[in-house]
Amino acid sequence: MFRKERKEMIVEKYGGTSVADVDKIKAIAKHVADLKKCGENVVVVASAMGKTTNKLIALAKEVGYAKNDRELDSLLSTGEQQTVTLLAMAIEAQGVPAISLTGYQAGFITSNHHAHARIKDIDLTNLQKHLNEGKVVVVAGFQGATENGEITTLGRGGSDTTAVALAAKLGWNCYIYTDVDGVYTVDPRVYPKAKKLPSITYKEMMQMASLGSGVLETRCVEIASKYNIQLYLGRALEEDLSKGTYIMEHKQIEDMPITGISVKEDYAIMRVRNIDNNGEYIGKLFKLIADLNINIDTISQQEGEAGKVNFTFYCNTTQSELIVNNYDEKKYGYPIERILGFVKLSVVGVGISTHSGIASTILNTLTQNGIRYYQITSSEISVSLTIEKHDKEKAVAVLAEAFDL
Amino acid sequence: MFRKERKEMIVEKYGGTSVADVDKIKAIAKHVADLKKCGENVVVVASAMGKTTNKLIALAKEVGYAKNDRELDSLLSTGEQQTVTLLAMAIEAQGVPAISLTGYQAGFITSNHHAHARIKDIDLTNLQKHLNEGKVVVVAGFQGATENGEITTLGRGGSDTTAVALAAKLGWNCYIYTDVDGVYTVDPRVYPKAKKLPSITYKEMMQMASLGSGVLETRCVEIASKYNIQLYLGRALEEDLSKGTYIMEHKQIEDMPITGISVKEDYAIMRVRNIDNNGEYIGKLFKLIADLNINIDTISQQEGEAGKVNFTFYCNTTQSELIVNNYDEKKYGYPIERILGFVKLSVVGVGISTHSGIASTILNTLTQNGIRYYQITSSEISVSLTIEKHDKEKAVAVLAEAFDL
Repeated sequence: MFRKERKEMIVEKYGGTSVADVDKIKAIAKHVADLKKCGENVVVVASAMGKTTNKLIALAKEVGYAKNDRELDSLLSTGEQQTVTLLAMAIEAQGVPAISLTGYQAGFITSNHHAHARIKDIDLTNLQKHLNEGKVVVVAGFQGATENGEITTLGRGGSDTTAVALAAKLGWNCYIYTDVDGVYTVDPRVYPKAKKLPSITYKEMMQMASLGSGVLETRCVEIASKYNIQLYLGRALEEDLSKGTYIMEHKQIEDMPITGISVKEDYAIMRVRNIDNNGEYIGKLFKLIADLNINIDTISQQEGEAGKVNFTFYCNTTQSELIVNNYDEKKYGYPIERILGFVKLSVVGVGISTHSGIASTILNTLTQNGIRYYQITSSEISVSLTIEKHDKEKAVAVLAEAFDL
Repeated sequence: MFRKERKEMIVEKYGGTSVADVDKIKAIAKHVADLKKCGENVVVVASAMGKTTNKLIALAKEVGYAKNDRELDSLLSTGEQQTVTLLAMAIEAQGVPAISLTGYQAGFITSNHHAHARIKDIDLTNLQKHLNEGKVVVVAGFQGATENGEITTLGRGGSDTTAVALAAKLGWNCYIYTDVDGVYTVDPRVYPKAKKLPSITYKEMMQMASLGSGVLETRCVEIASKYNIQLYLGRALEEDLSKGTYIMEHKQIEDMPITGISVKEDYAIMRVRNIDNNGEYIGKLFKLIADLNINIDTISQQEGEAGKVNFTFYCNTTQSELIVNNYDEKKYGYPIERILGFVKLSVVGVGISTHSGIASTILNTLTQNGIRYYQITSSEISVSLTIEKHDKEKAVAVLAEAFDL
């Protein structure tokens, strides 16, 4: 389907590279104005221009920023605010009424977890008023405010989350525009022969996302799935919408048991040995992890020496560092080990639960190619393995070939 | 008096050049942290860094900004927001707790005149809470918000107005830091031999400001005068406070009848000839001028031909353009003339009302030097004349010599 054939109410989201300079902003403004002139109702969500966020973080570090996320959030939020005002001006220059709204003005009420706030609700009153007046509404992505008016940011994938949450609340479809063509079976930077998927289910996408596909954050897909919002992911200003990937409840063509392979970089193994198996230590450790706001996956327990147990879990390098820095050995009673240099590989597909032999194909393929794997976990639609970093490319290539991805 | 000897509650305002780069921000942060460590209560008001505002305006023009001041206000407000977050981080890096507040967060409730909003009130609840917690509060200058949460800016001299209004509301003294040493008898760029004033009264300063001295906007001095807030104007980070100028109700040393000469550049004469003298036209013209939010000064009426009247007023070039662009000759019935290329010169001093002969000294001095003057107006503390632009330097020099400035 081509864009011109649509007649919808849509949320369009443009990432930083799509609005990196004045010419790009003008091109997007023209596109949005054309949509509006065709009678579509459009809400646009935009990120900060190009490298703005990184530049602001660099400035903050230069003045001695240590850990005041409240100030950093207020600083970073200016990036999106600048983009949306410029975009609104550029849309008006195309003869279409437009208005920009900050996260606060757009009604994004969040928790007070600075730097990784959660959206509690969206009060659409103000936004709806402007839509009713026939305006294109341009909303600053990545940001919201607490009930007290403190500016917050939503953390990784924040602007995507803004767009999807808004689409969910409005009941509209959501188009996420970026600088890639769509979702691939494998990250093309890791495996250049990877194929682009015309569609993918929410569940598969969530697995791909949470397992490191790097295209959409899990939380966005979660929201889309929860409210059954059709997501589209594709290249900005590409008029042919068959070139991107649709993310939806059920795939249109369910031809492949395996949808793709995703890679989560910078993985660390954390291990505590020979602990008393009475739950006390584990309780304390889990409290620490929760306090640090870390979601760990793949926790396992093995028998240790003399009735004691070993306890292993995986997380990314940054999180592992956070744990190590906040882990007081005296308080917890046992030393914690950290081993770096891993990646987590996941084979994803709704066919996994219905096609037998997939796990064994994976393990055989790796073994035949001399690739060592550490931890295996599986869900209804995925099989994940931890492997050493240097085996990454090889493992992806042999598995992609084995499953014809 | 040296700063170290003070023990006060103060509002300090830093302009764009004082916070132009990271090193300057850090230097100011150290100074503010030192004040706080000495037990002073400090609220800091800051402008956007260096040329940020101009750069944002340039970006807006590039994307096709025409007249949407609502969007421009939201865009420009990010400049100050960035400065204050960085400054708060830098103060915290000095070991002193600090928090930044946007205009909205600091409680600045304004009219909805975008680009030149007026402060209606300041709700100090939030700011006071942070002060009570022992923090340095860093407030974004130049901005506020309407009751509906729309971001506004205060127009020319906006950050100074923020600082003085805050000082007035808190009942504190206000230090305005800039890149000049203080208030001079004449703008040193026009007359290099000008002398710096140790103090000046509110009334004199208002005349100097409204008549183009370019150091402080009239509205700031108005507020200071209304609430009797002592203002200090001087160079940022200069520790010796005897080097700047104090602005207060009464001068400490009242030795000179004339305080200074101020120059208002880019003046235009607007004239309508031979109108019926029944008030109808004037009423309509005044309504237009009010709608355009222009304050004109020096209006005069002369006899025209056959019982009709001529009508002349003065305003700056930009305002004159605005009037011409919005003046519909058909609707008003008379053509309006505009003559460019003037400046307004004002001789200011509380001595004018008590020392006779000052007006005649001015006029004689100009005539003897072959300088033609057009319109003369006088107030209790000033005499103003419109002269041709090319006579500016000469007129300032001969008058400064005549009054030993």
